[in-house]
Amino acid sequence: MQVRVAAMQMAMSADSHENLQRAEHWVRAAAKAGAQIILPSELFSTLYFCKDQDIDHFALARTKDQDPGVQKMQKLAAELGVVIPVSFFEKAGNCYFNSVLTFDADGRELGLYRKAHIPDGPGYQEKFYFSPGDTGFQVFPSRFGRLGIGICWDQWFPETARILALQGAEILLFPTAIGSEPKAPELNSRSHWTRVMQGHAAANILPVVAANRIGQEMGKDATITFYGGSFICDGTGEIIAMADQEEGFIDATLDLAAIARHRLDWGLFRDRRPDLYGSLCSLDGKPKKRD
Amino acid sequence: MQVRVAAMQMAMSADSHENLQRAEHWVRAAAKAGAQIILPSELFSTLYFCKDQDIDHFALARTKDQDPGVQKMQKLAAELGVVIPVSFFEKAGNCYFNSVLTFDADGRELGLYRKAHIPDGPGYQEKFYFSPGDTGFQVFPSRFGRLGIGICWDQWFPETARILALQGAEILLFPTAIGSEPKAPELNSRSHWTRVMQGHAAANILPVVAANRIGQEMGKDATITFYGGSFICDGTGEIIAMADQEEGFIDATLDLAAIARHRLDWGLFRDRRPDLYGSLCSLDGKPKKRD
Repeated sequence: MQVRVAAMQMAMSADSHENLQRAEHWVRAAAKAGAQIILPSELFSTLYFCKDQDIDHFALARTKDQDPGVQKMQKLAAELGVVIPVSFFEKAGNCYFNSVLTFDADGRELGLYRKAHIPDGPGYQEKFYFSPGDTGFQVFPSRFGRLGIGICWDQWFPETARILALQGAEILLFPTAIGSEPKAPELNSRSHWTRVMQGHAAANILPVVAANRIGQEMGKDATITFYGGSFICDGTGEIIAMADQEEGFIDATLDLAAIARHRLDWGLFRDRRPDLYGSLCSLDGKPKKRD
Repeated sequence: MQVRVAAMQMAMSADSHENLQRAEHWVRAAAKAGAQIILPSELFSTLYFCKDQDIDHFALARTKDQDPGVQKMQKLAAELGVVIPVSFFEKAGNCYFNSVLTFDADGRELGLYRKAHIPDGPGYQEKFYFSPGDTGFQVFPSRFGRLGIGICWDQWFPETARILALQGAEILLFPTAIGSEPKAPELNSRSHWTRVMQGHAAANILPVVAANRIGQEMGKDATITFYGGSFICDGTGEIIAMADQEEGFIDATLDLAAIARHRLDWGLFRDRRPDLYGSLCSLDGKPKKRD
């Protein structure tokens, strides 16, 4: 099965309406170029507000049925016949999550995923805003393949990719917002960020699509230059499309049947040793005692 | 803590005595160049006998106290003041393992690890010879750092690297024997092989040392050209030393304290979600029911 995937890369402004207009523009452009699965980056409706701990930013959150970005993307998915995993700031009861709602190519809701791994550090104050996701990892069976979705920081964890692979994912998608480190200007994590996901692809024999934002955003406490570098890699982790720091989209065609055959041939999933993996289910590396 | 590590890369012949003489030569050369941890490749005393299923090859196995390669490397470790993880074909009771015995810089035995993940396929008939290892993953506290050791196929599994990281490994070492695919001559896995380990390094912020063999070996059923490409990468997965297909050794200096600081700063181990990882402990991705 041949599938054409695209990752969008944009700079965002404080004007959400304008961000969504531009997102629509790029979704239409990617669809016109033949993309069947189109991935916007993380929290693409707004600036990356987590630069600061600011109580006022909670006002940006919406329930999944009231978010303007979600609504716009759902309509576009149905109109254009494309699959869109839509990142948004979710309000749910008294809690707030960093979520993705994925729409199938007919606009039907495939399901909600809430970011499991929440970072915290200078410029990336996510633990102030988001509860750690309670949905678990999920694979969504779309018209164009079974999609495993993680959100930004999730992409740093081999567990995310492996669990999605075990659940039968055929493509891994990671909407992202990552850039410079406000307290460590000498550190550029772009290559590190790229390699960790190439590793997930290689270890699970699964293609990866990563969409990052660009632009410089000035907060009260921190300024971040988002480095873009959105990419698509094949099931061996080889980069087959990569953006630098320009706005637009990248795309590539994936042969999911050929990749599945390679995955089977390589035998990795046959040879796992879950009897030895108990310590993965602890933080300190000591297998947890059963109740 | 600055540590100098080396990976050896050799072609092997049917003459074990000659293989060990050359291995000694390269250990001495690496030590003379300042290496403190020296990694020979997998099963470096012999040809890679797993190309065929041949009952006669079991005669190559020895108990850990009787293997000539183990004995020679133990003496060299003590004489030169270097740490050596020694790969050998282990006979233990009625079973046979693909094992590594690691010697500290005074020649003292640090412990035995038996390869957990056993491959099987054209040219790599390891399931015919080796029982899946029963030691579990282990970190060995050597004079020059805490060593996490996996053997060849183990290197393809993110679980190996993660568990060793959780146990406090400071360096991951992978003795290897990998090359061409007898039934798929068009497939060259070298880049795939490299990227999966770069991914382990990047995801765990741990340097990786991989030592592979070179040379063409002709079996009865399969001929393999081992592709070398031994490498050392830093804690972001960036390659800092790499061989091509020449015999010798590569070496690099690692600042374990700086890497540990980066690991702490990045926060990955703080943010894991073991409550969501239960399915990792199953083959089919379904969390196992408790007894």
